[in-house]
Amino acid sequence: MSNKLTSRADDYSKWYNELVGRADLAEHSDVRGCMIIKPYGFAIWENMKDVLDAKFKETGHSNAYFPLFIPKSFLSKEANHVDGFAKECAVVTHYRLKNGENGEGVIVDPDAKLEEELIVRPTSETIIWNSYKNWIQSYRDLPILINQWANVVRWEMRTRLFLRTTEFLWQEGHTAHATKAEAIEEAEKMLDVYTDFVENYMAMPVIRGYKSESERFAGADETYCIEAMMQDTKALQAGTSHFLGQNFAKAFDVKYADKEGKLEHVWATSWGVSTRLMGALIMTHSDDEGLVLPPRIAPIHVVIVPIFKTDEEREAIATKSAELINKFKALGIRVKFDDDDNRRPGWKFAEYEMKGVPVRIAIGPRDLAAGNVELARRDTKEKSVVSMEGIDQYVKTLLDEIQLNLLDKAKAFREANIHQVDTYEEFKLQLEAKGGFYLVHWDGTKETEEKIKQETQATIRCIPLDTPNEEGKCMVTGKPSSRRVIIAKAY
Amino acid sequence: MSNKLTSRADDYSKWYNELVGRADLAEHSDVRGCMIIKPYGFAIWENMKDVLDAKFKETGHSNAYFPLFIPKSFLSKEANHVDGFAKECAVVTHYRLKNGENGEGVIVDPDAKLEEELIVRPTSETIIWNSYKNWIQSYRDLPILINQWANVVRWEMRTRLFLRTTEFLWQEGHTAHATKAEAIEEAEKMLDVYTDFVENYMAMPVIRGYKSESERFAGADETYCIEAMMQDTKALQAGTSHFLGQNFAKAFDVKYADKEGKLEHVWATSWGVSTRLMGALIMTHSDDEGLVLPPRIAPIHVVIVPIFKTDEEREAIATKSAELINKFKALGIRVKFDDDDNRRPGWKFAEYEMKGVPVRIAIGPRDLAAGNVELARRDTKEKSVVSMEGIDQYVKTLLDEIQLNLLDKAKAFREANIHQVDTYEEFKLQLEAKGGFYLVHWDGTKETEEKIKQETQATIRCIPLDTPNEEGKCMVTGKPSSRRVIIAKAY
Repeated sequence: MSNKLTSRADDYSKWYNELVGRADLAEHSDVRGCMIIKPYGFAIWENMKDVLDAKFKETGHSNAYFPLFIPKSFLSKEANHVDGFAKECAVVTHYRLKNGENGEGVIVDPDAKLEEELIVRPTSETIIWNSYKNWIQSYRDLPILINQWANVVRWEMRTRLFLRTTEFLWQEGHTAHATKAEAIEEAEKMLDVYTDFVENYMAMPVIRGYKSESERFAGADETYCIEAMMQDTKALQAGTSHFLGQNFAKAFDVKYADKEGKLEHVWATSWGVSTRLMGALIMTHSDDEGLVLPPRIAPIHVVIVPIFKTDEEREAIATKSAELINKFKALGIRVKFDDDDNRRPGWKFAEYEMKGVPVRIAIGPRDLAAGNVELARRDTKEKSVVSMEGIDQYVKTLLDEIQLNLLDKAKAFREANIHQVDTYEEFKLQLEAKGGFYLVHWDGTKETEEKIKQETQATIRCIPLDTPNEEGKCMVTGKPSSRRVIIAKAY
Repeated sequence: MSNKLTSRADDYSKWYNELVGRADLAEHSDVRGCMIIKPYGFAIWENMKDVLDAKFKETGHSNAYFPLFIPKSFLSKEANHVDGFAKECAVVTHYRLKNGENGEGVIVDPDAKLEEELIVRPTSETIIWNSYKNWIQSYRDLPILINQWANVVRWEMRTRLFLRTTEFLWQEGHTAHATKAEAIEEAEKMLDVYTDFVENYMAMPVIRGYKSESERFAGADETYCIEAMMQDTKALQAGTSHFLGQNFAKAFDVKYADKEGKLEHVWATSWGVSTRLMGALIMTHSDDEGLVLPPRIAPIHVVIVPIFKTDEEREAIATKSAELINKFKALGIRVKFDDDDNRRPGWKFAEYEMKGVPVRIAIGPRDLAAGNVELARRDTKEKSVVSMEGIDQYVKTLLDEIQLNLLDKAKAFREANIHQVDTYEEFKLQLEAKGGFYLVHWDGTKETEEKIKQETQATIRCIPLDTPNEEGKCMVTGKPSSRRVIIAKAY
């Protein structure tokens, strides 16, 4: 832990990669594009998962589990869906290996070829709607509100840890409704759940909106999204919630009988967030010393580092620390006591900074005598001397303060980097000069969207839900527009 | 819910299949051998998972996540391991589909063939030890105590819901140690964790033991196991914990430097339980009316069914029930209030019996007037009239009683069906006549084991850890034996 990270200013991308490794979050495996999520990284993901799972249950959803494999023919049933996913999928063609006859080790047994190939799920709409077909007969069977936590595979050519990996972990909600209005309400409700989670737990401010047609999920009538700004001012899509219309119900022939016995196709939503959020978390808060974690999802809230020379000092500090630890635990504060003999305090300080532990407490013999500790905040790096008396409550309040501070800081950064421009020239100049998000008028056509993308690499991130209507003219074509959209370069 | 289940006595296997469907636990998918775990079944699995996960963490383990795919060459590195798993694996050979040229829909793109085929993990020793190689240099890096919750695939020709499916969910612990003694201690510790969980949460008594060589995990030096008896007196292996020796460390060249700087191969364990436990749970406790669930893992502890004719009665019962529900919740009792208008009380009674809800409370106008409820226990089917006053504490105590009763009942059943025999003739006669577990002397040879299996379909389930040594003679060959083993037909 002696070497510093590459700074964000020097090379943002390199900084990210180094940080993911040095904070022990994840690493590349020897399987192309697949990552290993290491225990510390996984502990953060588990905390995120626990909060989300509770929110899904509070809003009436149950978990279930559907097969990993999707028959090739299922994927083909919804035309847009297959176009979107066929190009990047892992295909199982055989079900057995055998010993080769020429001493080359095991080989794929040619006699064990599947009649129909199986796709490793890139998303589960098709396999799930194939089941819903059997589960839904009448309006009494609706709504169905199901979520699953699962691994999915999309064959990516260029991968980056957490941000884009061939296999990733996610949750996917799949709901079925009797009416269009109810399905839209569900899609919007889940966008709100994501917004609440991302802002209030991950401390990442997001812009809520919906996607342009060309950025929609393959098979959706509307894709709602939340977009976050990373510290390099690029956008990251933090979650999506899709109103699927009757597309999958039609593809899989899923109808319900209403109260009058009339058969209607069922309405659908799906919504998901993934381990990509880990990448967003890192890129929103962390600094050149390493990870910075919002307390609400930090595996460790407080680390206590004893500083001693003699065994006697060590013993005395350990005894007092045990007292403090009990008090912390009673308040639900997750605390680690690190008295590892093999490492010096300075090494530990750097290590826990790298790992983003929100609060560090150091206790030496003089602190002990004075009834104080030295306390350091990870977010501001401020140090202070704090009395041991009532330190549990002090830290509890401080953790809340850190949580809010991180959100405020990220909000301020985003506000400073959202620009409103009215001409394409201005847009190109500013984007090139300083990056950021741009609120601009767009004529709503695919052609203009594509032109902007081709010429600037920036894309329409979303049509924001929370901004007012405003008459204007498309910055590219001058055609009328009734609302500004957000354009930015994105992960 | 009008039709009764096939009875266990009539057709145990049919009873099981019907129950899994009717209690809404799981169903077959259209993907060969893969099941869909439905919300009610998954809620039971989640409860099991939560308890186990907490126990793993208490014993010092962390969760992590390793890739779904294993390069074919990794699987081949440990000779016994590949022999055990190559015959039943899903093989990914391509990474893209494309539109066929003759209008046949999407086809596998022949240009997207992988250089090296990937196996969908049947278990993760190889991919994990390939990583541990990079994580372990010195004794300071040990032990590594990691668990993962994952889906795995073993291509099964004959499948049954929960008991044997191509894809299943499980946890797999993978630990690395500096010494043989420590690794053995870990393997035994995890067997104790499983025993505690299965007996005290699932209310399933188990016999702790270790496997004969031919029943060992492919790649293990010793496989510890817990064996449970189902109601048809067949055995079910409920969990295994493997001491892997240095086999995987040698296959993947994983060495550590000890305090003197000497390089040594690392010692390993792995251990797992799976959704198969759901099958064991069902077959241990359930009866001809449906599922019976131990309270500690039941998604719903208490269901309240209001019985009313008028809206006024309905209102009064709902108000009183809301009070009771709050009291139940305060004690951590999971309660459901079912006032669905579409179903009659009798239908609901049968439905919650089918779903194994431990306690049912019915409240009608006369109960309300008298301050009583009618309470029914699912395990004994006893009904009683209980005062609303203090019913929360009453039910809490009752749930504990039901939990213990289920374990006692299962223990008594098992005791009645374990037999000690000394001759092969007697063994065959009794096994044929009444099934059960048999404590017999065995000469320790594969030949005898194989002969018994061929002639009786019974297998050596384990060499029990908790029975005394006893000199005797093998029931088949008459050769000396120092200990009885358990033989039974098994799932």
